[in-house]
Amino acid sequence: MNAFVAALRARLGEAGCLTDGDLSAYETDWRKRYPGRALAVARPASTDEVAAVLKLCHEHRVAVVPQGGNTGLVGGSTPDDSGQQLVLSLQRMRRIRAVDGANASLTAEAGCVLGEVQAAAAQAGWLFPLSLAAEGSCTLGGNLATNAGGTQVLRYGNARELCLGLEVVTAQGEVWHGLSGLRKDNTGYDLRDLFIGSEGTLGVITAATVKLYPQPRERLTALAACPSLDAAVALLSRARAAAGDALTGFEVMSRATLALVARELPALPQPLPAAAWTVLLELSDAESAAHAQGVFERLLEGALESGVVTDAAIAQNLQQAQSFWHLRESIPLAQAQAGLNIKHDISLPVSAIPGFVAEMDAQLTAYQRGIEVINFGHLGDGNLHYNVQAPQGVAPAAFLAAHEAAINAQVYDAVQRRGGSISAEHGIGRLKREELAARKDPTALALMRSIKRALDPLNLLNPGRVL
Amino acid sequence: MNAFVAALRARLGEAGCLTDGDLSAYETDWRKRYPGRALAVARPASTDEVAAVLKLCHEHRVAVVPQGGNTGLVGGSTPDDSGQQLVLSLQRMRRIRAVDGANASLTAEAGCVLGEVQAAAAQAGWLFPLSLAAEGSCTLGGNLATNAGGTQVLRYGNARELCLGLEVVTAQGEVWHGLSGLRKDNTGYDLRDLFIGSEGTLGVITAATVKLYPQPRERLTALAACPSLDAAVALLSRARAAAGDALTGFEVMSRATLALVARELPALPQPLPAAAWTVLLELSDAESAAHAQGVFERLLEGALESGVVTDAAIAQNLQQAQSFWHLRESIPLAQAQAGLNIKHDISLPVSAIPGFVAEMDAQLTAYQRGIEVINFGHLGDGNLHYNVQAPQGVAPAAFLAAHEAAINAQVYDAVQRRGGSISAEHGIGRLKREELAARKDPTALALMRSIKRALDPLNLLNPGRVL
Repeated sequence: MNAFVAALRARLGEAGCLTDGDLSAYETDWRKRYPGRALAVARPASTDEVAAVLKLCHEHRVAVVPQGGNTGLVGGSTPDDSGQQLVLSLQRMRRIRAVDGANASLTAEAGCVLGEVQAAAAQAGWLFPLSLAAEGSCTLGGNLATNAGGTQVLRYGNARELCLGLEVVTAQGEVWHGLSGLRKDNTGYDLRDLFIGSEGTLGVITAATVKLYPQPRERLTALAACPSLDAAVALLSRARAAAGDALTGFEVMSRATLALVARELPALPQPLPAAAWTVLLELSDAESAAHAQGVFERLLEGALESGVVTDAAIAQNLQQAQSFWHLRESIPLAQAQAGLNIKHDISLPVSAIPGFVAEMDAQLTAYQRGIEVINFGHLGDGNLHYNVQAPQGVAPAAFLAAHEAAINAQVYDAVQRRGGSISAEHGIGRLKREELAARKDPTALALMRSIKRALDPLNLLNPGRVL
Repeated sequence: MNAFVAALRARLGEAGCLTDGDLSAYETDWRKRYPGRALAVARPASTDEVAAVLKLCHEHRVAVVPQGGNTGLVGGSTPDDSGQQLVLSLQRMRRIRAVDGANASLTAEAGCVLGEVQAAAAQAGWLFPLSLAAEGSCTLGGNLATNAGGTQVLRYGNARELCLGLEVVTAQGEVWHGLSGLRKDNTGYDLRDLFIGSEGTLGVITAATVKLYPQPRERLTALAACPSLDAAVALLSRARAAAGDALTGFEVMSRATLALVARELPALPQPLPAAAWTVLLELSDAESAAHAQGVFERLLEGALESGVVTDAAIAQNLQQAQSFWHLRESIPLAQAQAGLNIKHDISLPVSAIPGFVAEMDAQLTAYQRGIEVINFGHLGDGNLHYNVQAPQGVAPAAFLAAHEAAINAQVYDAVQRRGGSISAEHGIGRLKREELAARKDPTALALMRSIKRALDPLNLLNPGRVL
């Protein structure tokens, strides 16, 4: 190992190879759930240096944990506690290589912080729509390695849908020059999408070409009260038909969710009276504020008449729009204040959601009286954060210790029966690896293992993650 | 081989296993460029039967050529002339399994004709936007196996972007149950996109779940004359900014292209006077005819004022809209009448197109005086049909025999220098296999070969295609 670290230092220099001092920022995730110990931290500054690192790892049989902003939620980007795994941080590779306005594309290195990519696009008059809570510190490479979701998926898709081409270093230290600004290219297998979402287990993404979009002229937000989840699904269909792709947000919050927010954050205004479901709609209009206003008014009038919506409010100014979003975004804070809870990041066909929620709510209430389901999320994407909180008066930690496994099993069983996913946007990492092995289609698992063996036969790339 | 055919017949019955009579519809592509001879034609009627066929092939080491509508352009779906390859036709698997309106998705078997899938969606009030010339006979499975493009890519993407989930039978005869109506699912490697576009070399697609879209309320078409290709690119940026995703078509036709149409099809009206470039724009509006008209008028007025456009006409009724499209669609017919020509299905970053065309036109004119470049295509997707015709008075067949290889090399070299693709939408098959091996990034080729070996170690799935 000493020979390996020496060779690494010789190739990358002092700044590129950390072994001493406090490495905890690299060794532990930001939520401090996955503390580990690294053999060393490699910080290459170029694609050639990444290739050199991986060649050395291959030669010395050293396992590599690629790392971007280290903001993941599933333990995918920190080393285990053996002290034998190399952390490969991409943070020094943060050049915006090109912005091509006529082609509506941008090429950036993997270590660029998402917010910097958004800013580079905006500076050139374009929108890079990927947006999520960690955008101030997560990196483009990490976003692609985990196929990040976020708040704009309904309209623009996940990170996958925003990517045109990749530059990747393989387990053997070879560089695939797959950067491309092409919208159409049928020359062979889709390697790009194989690396996207593979969580660093098949190769190391060093740069990407992504799609840019015209900046919307106007963003408008509304809240609507729905008497049932079926009504919310009906409102989604209506909104899609009325607004087409101008519909960029469709978030739902259950009555219990907003009651929790009222309890924990009493100063936060709630514009609509309590309802079974409150929907936040966002419209991004290419034309004008007046046009967006007209679309919303027609949509909501029709929905009110038909009973799909019982009450509604359109934000009258930017401040009001921000307060609507703030309400939605304050849910995790309210949950954190209320104490530990059991989180689920599930997705279902939108049509299956009302049935799932009715069944699950009843089942969990029967399982444990007083359980609180804090259910909210991106209904437009079929993605719910179906979180479960201890009955009031019961200590959360004790509740979790006693019931988390049983509740997870019930939720995941029901998700599986309805063709859903146990990880809609967060990935697998270490957290859900065993769950995946138990629940994924066996042929899919066999295919995944074949591909892993083919591309990384020595199992050096992020071993023990995903598979 | 007799034992294999007997076992096949025993499993599939007489209707499922053809060996006698005229099999030319299965053995030869529709353009009659790739005549072959099949060992037999298997026509399974269910996924289980497809799995049984592939298990038998695996056991008896028989190569399989999967086939949908047999409308491909690159020799990917017909057997070689050995008489040893089995044609596996999916045409009996043509059930629409489900239409899920609330989830905006549809599940259909691979043998469904594309037009039937469109019709099933329309009957339920939805749009399935994949659309191409062969839609009356090509199949959904073939569309996905080749990642088909077509006329609606600018807005809705290729077949890949329209697919949510797949059911696939592997080379070993195992079924991957990957049908899914989910928009978000981060549970492992993206097997779906690996099979899409792999041209039957990694597995056999038996069914797919695809996305549906709201039907646009109004479609509006316009023609615009541009003084240069740079101006056409500028018009594309303006149209994107003005119309957002309502812009569903942006096709260009060069002066020489419309002159050829005028010469070969003199009865066909050409609404605008000849210009360097004529652009066909299509708007699919979610609101109303008046709204679409307003968007077009504002766009074209601004473009006229700035000189990006020198003349324009908005279709005043459906008949006129059809005549605009008819002009665009008549180009292949005019070319066929004029005789053989050298076809290229290339793509480039949109920003690189003006430079490429200027360079290539000059180079080919210098190479052979009088050469005619018939250049038209989906500018919005960066996809050009950059076709080359013999000088007038020179026999096309002799011209092709003498110059096709040299012209291909010049065009593909220039495409490659500018980061383009030698096959934008048609795929590789047998036609471009050697070109791919010579031109694709070597690391990409090595990765593709690893994956092929991992999933089909006996090389039984469509051998000799793609790789």
